[in-house]
Amino acid sequence: MNATERRLTPLVILLLLALLVLLLAGWVMDRVNREAQGPSASLAPDEVIRWKLVTTWPKNFPGLGLGPENFARLVKDMSGGRLQVHVYGGGEIVPPFGVFDAVSQGVAEMGHGAGYYWTGKVPSAVFFTAVPFGFTADEASAWMHYGGGLELWRKAYAPFNLIPLAGGNSGTQMAGWFNKEINSIDDLQGLKMRIPGLGGEVFSRAGGTAVTIPGGELYTSLQTGVIDATEWVGPYNDLAMGLHEVAEYYYYPGWQEPGPVLEFIVNADAFASLPADLQTIVESAARNVNQDMLDEYTARNNRALKELVEVHGVKLRRLPDDVIIALKQAAQEAVKELAASDPMAAEAYASFSEFYEGVKHYHSISEQAYINARDLEADPEQ
Amino acid sequence: MNATERRLTPLVILLLLALLVLLLAGWVMDRVNREAQGPSASLAPDEVIRWKLVTTWPKNFPGLGLGPENFARLVKDMSGGRLQVHVYGGGEIVPPFGVFDAVSQGVAEMGHGAGYYWTGKVPSAVFFTAVPFGFTADEASAWMHYGGGLELWRKAYAPFNLIPLAGGNSGTQMAGWFNKEINSIDDLQGLKMRIPGLGGEVFSRAGGTAVTIPGGELYTSLQTGVIDATEWVGPYNDLAMGLHEVAEYYYYPGWQEPGPVLEFIVNADAFASLPADLQTIVESAARNVNQDMLDEYTARNNRALKELVEVHGVKLRRLPDDVIIALKQAAQEAVKELAASDPMAAEAYASFSEFYEGVKHYHSISEQAYINARDLEADPEQ
Repeated sequence: MNATERRLTPLVILLLLALLVLLLAGWVMDRVNREAQGPSASLAPDEVIRWKLVTTWPKNFPGLGLGPENFARLVKDMSGGRLQVHVYGGGEIVPPFGVFDAVSQGVAEMGHGAGYYWTGKVPSAVFFTAVPFGFTADEASAWMHYGGGLELWRKAYAPFNLIPLAGGNSGTQMAGWFNKEINSIDDLQGLKMRIPGLGGEVFSRAGGTAVTIPGGELYTSLQTGVIDATEWVGPYNDLAMGLHEVAEYYYYPGWQEPGPVLEFIVNADAFASLPADLQTIVESAARNVNQDMLDEYTARNNRALKELVEVHGVKLRRLPDDVIIALKQAAQEAVKELAASDPMAAEAYASFSEFYEGVKHYHSISEQAYINARDLEADPEQ
Repeated sequence: MNATERRLTPLVILLLLALLVLLLAGWVMDRVNREAQGPSASLAPDEVIRWKLVTTWPKNFPGLGLGPENFARLVKDMSGGRLQVHVYGGGEIVPPFGVFDAVSQGVAEMGHGAGYYWTGKVPSAVFFTAVPFGFTADEASAWMHYGGGLELWRKAYAPFNLIPLAGGNSGTQMAGWFNKEINSIDDLQGLKMRIPGLGGEVFSRAGGTAVTIPGGELYTSLQTGVIDATEWVGPYNDLAMGLHEVAEYYYYPGWQEPGPVLEFIVNADAFASLPADLQTIVESAARNVNQDMLDEYTARNNRALKELVEVHGVKLRRLPDDVIIALKQAAQEAVKELAASDPMAAEAYASFSEFYEGVKHYHSISEQAYINARDLEADPEQ
């Protein structure tokens, strides 16, 4: 190395370092600029969190199945794309009744369905979904969020590494479609009706024969006389199934599910791994969907009922008093036995019962008194 | 400069540059780490958007006034602190009834109150708040979100540069506190009752004398006989006001406000200036509060009613049929006249009426049929 080379070598190193400094400074400025555009723009694609949400419903099933789709859209929009939830229909990656286990084990981060599907594992889940002759939608939501219901639900699901959130409500369902008139409790004896869960248990105690048939087979089963009657959801979903084509009478009220609460379940580890803002976004989007679904059902049931009656000539019938009373007595017995079978169910039942008595009395002088009062008409003879 | 100095100078520069590179690399790593903790940490303080929300309620007023506080908390948490909304009670920076103008003019970015306060400017606002003998909370929410109500509300407020959002519901209110029994429509004649807005107009048409008195003066006015009766909200708020100490009878149902919808209003320019994710966060937080307030009222009214009756011995009374019928007829006339007075009110009334007839029929076979059925008891003689 000669003297010239000795002078040039540090200069070359110096120039290379200066270049490196410039490159680094440029990269830093780029990041700062991108950051100023908001968090969505500041994230590299590999920083997007992608979750799977498995459901018990067919993909895009009207009402019930659109809840998780609306949830996913809200979460994506509110997070600026940082949390993207892909919704899978029942059977796409896990079977409908495999949702609870899949989310518990972390196969998917979230699920959507109805808690009473898991009564085999969690007997108390009935109280967090639908009790025959229990809460209406508003009463259930008030118990959940201001009556201790959600805390108990979380306690019941904690051993399964799951966090539950209220995830939609259909409102009071219909008693169902019947191929003969029900004039007294005698007409229920031996009647073969598709009615699952605790409702079916109650129906059997009142003298009927409860059978379980998948939704997709209801139409044919009614048409061929395999069953005499079926319950499904309410006017909006029932009209879409065409049940008015294969049954003559449409009975109300839906004593078996007066205000069923659907559920989102979140794998507890997945939830804990989210930053605080995304945790609140997940909770808030679920709460949003919980009310939005009831709004949608209220509006669509209203219009579907009109079509069923005015276009299709469906015969609307109210269950006779003696049938309602018999079903209510059977329901009270069945619910008490369920509560006695499991400590967590007993705890949920105690909280449920105390809230139920209070809210029933309160609604008797508010919503119930009002909607009965608005039906009053002046005596035309006066 | 000697040969040694010539050799050392580039080395010093090189070392200084290396130090600079290390410092820069450290700073970059720090930013990357902070970014990984979520967007709140990545924002410089001057990137926080600060909004003012003015309300028609006293600061932290139970129920009604906590809605905007809950909204602000949700927005802050979901945005990772990027949007911070400060809530002002009525009179803090604008008077309670100055909220509409203040938000319209951009003095504050948001407001919270009840639409019927602005009927002088927007006659149709009655339909978006509470119609005597109109919607329950669920019916109003369904009309808003799936029946065209919100679109009409936005149209009505657009000329004022305001975007409305449903912002809470108290559920069916009580008819009010009375110092004498109401046994027939004759007992209403000349009765001085504090009942504001369209409810007051209806009450006057039915023979009463409607007066307007601020909430803070109700207790003394009832006590001194300045008024014979007053309506306020429902058991939870009424108990806190101590109205049971100065009136003997507590009447139901609250025909004047069967399911009043509160409102958030957003200055349209302020809303447009938000990035898309914060816009959705604002909308979703409002929707959340809309349902949460009803849940809170349902639970707290239930407990307050128990206390009013069991501890304070309040005499609960139902308005007689002839009073209800007279008030309903007067309400129908008053609402029709209101609709005839303004094109936007006429448009809202047409949409309201069509939805009302349908949802009333649907609820008569769902929620209404169910809550009446669950009261049935077996005949003890059988």
